[in-house]
Amino acid sequence: MIRLYDYLPSGNGYKVRLLLTQLKIPFERIELDIIKGSTRTREFLGKFPNGRIPAVEFDDGRRLFESNAIMWHFAETTALVPKDPFERARALQWMFFEQYSHEPYIAVARFFAMHPSYPDERRAGLPRIIRSGYEALGVMELHLGGGGEGDHPREFLVGGKYSIADIALYAYTHVAHEGGLDLANYPAIREWLARVKSQPRHIPITQG
Amino acid sequence: MIRLYDYLPSGNGYKVRLLLTQLKIPFERIELDIIKGSTRTREFLGKFPNGRIPAVEFDDGRRLFESNAIMWHFAETTALVPKDPFERARALQWMFFEQYSHEPYIAVARFFAMHPSYPDERRAGLPRIIRSGYEALGVMELHLGGGGEGDHPREFLVGGKYSIADIALYAYTHVAHEGGLDLANYPAIREWLARVKSQPRHIPITQG
Repeated sequence: MIRLYDYLPSGNGYKVRLLLTQLKIPFERIELDIIKGSTRTREFLGKFPNGRIPAVEFDDGRRLFESNAIMWHFAETTALVPKDPFERARALQWMFFEQYSHEPYIAVARFFAMHPSYPDERRAGLPRIIRSGYEALGVMELHLGGGGEGDHPREFLVGGKYSIADIALYAYTHVAHEGGLDLANYPAIREWLARVKSQPRHIPITQG
Repeated sequence: MIRLYDYLPSGNGYKVRLLLTQLKIPFERIELDIIKGSTRTREFLGKFPNGRIPAVEFDDGRRLFESNAIMWHFAETTALVPKDPFERARALQWMFFEQYSHEPYIAVARFFAMHPSYPDERRAGLPRIIRSGYEALGVMELHLGGGGEGDHPREFLVGGKYSIADIALYAYTHVAHEGGLDLANYPAIREWLARVKSQPRHIPITQG
């Protein structure tokens, strides 16, 4: 069985848990406490040199890290990755946006709020982090609300269908308030969150 | 013809320029000075809501942003993306690693060095940025030098062949010294840089 190295509060870990559950792929979850440095041990780094969860290990020893690459691997031939080549690139576009312009702000603000005494030099930059988080939400709101190409509201991020791009951005957006980001002024995002949550076999972030 | 919105010093822009050149795909380059805010105009944001280069626009009006997603789009059916599904996920793994753990440090340190008077709140965190940049180089060195899965040195990041994962990580690694990062202690990276540079139709980052 697939072994998923995970940390329950992690939105990145949640992406993989949610995807595997929705695809009915069984997995064994191995909880690692990142606060206690469990992903920086010699053993873990020997397997996963970037020292981060989520990471997966197969029975034959193959390994893969980076949440969005793991999702791509399991979903590539399913309905959760668009068939059309251009839509596929667009799904990746939103997944790279998530890791570059969204997660480093929205996830980090939440991490600071969840661990107020954890020492982290980046904490001094929190006002800028919050501002950048709202910028990322603004890009999503514009896109979902119908800005940019075309001018019709969008049910999902890519191709009018639920995909791994939605899972990637749902993971930290739906808990953005835990980091102090208020979604009151983002109605298109709030409607989209409800649509993602209503998909078959959805699980909450708290479910291991 | 494809229009590529670009900024010559950008490693992210360079990835797309290099790839299109190696694939012999003609493109028109539109230079935007990010320092002067040319990617934050109403017109540009109307087309590309994330306000970043590189971004491409096709004759039929379709648009795509995020350097690594653009590369995937043009390369998906070429020899620059692995045929094997697992190797394909591994290519994405390194591309997500690049955008999350590498570019935000190595590119940002270089940006600060190139624009010493440009106001940026993140500049106070430069020592941490440099440290995180070296961590990313350490992960690459371990992988290329033969650490992790298997224990043989690797010619390229994925599957023993030059791919878009190499382009993604070459872009800022080969100019890391411009941001003050010294590759002296990273021999596997230096040999890999030379291999990437020797690929057919390679162009330097200074070539538009």
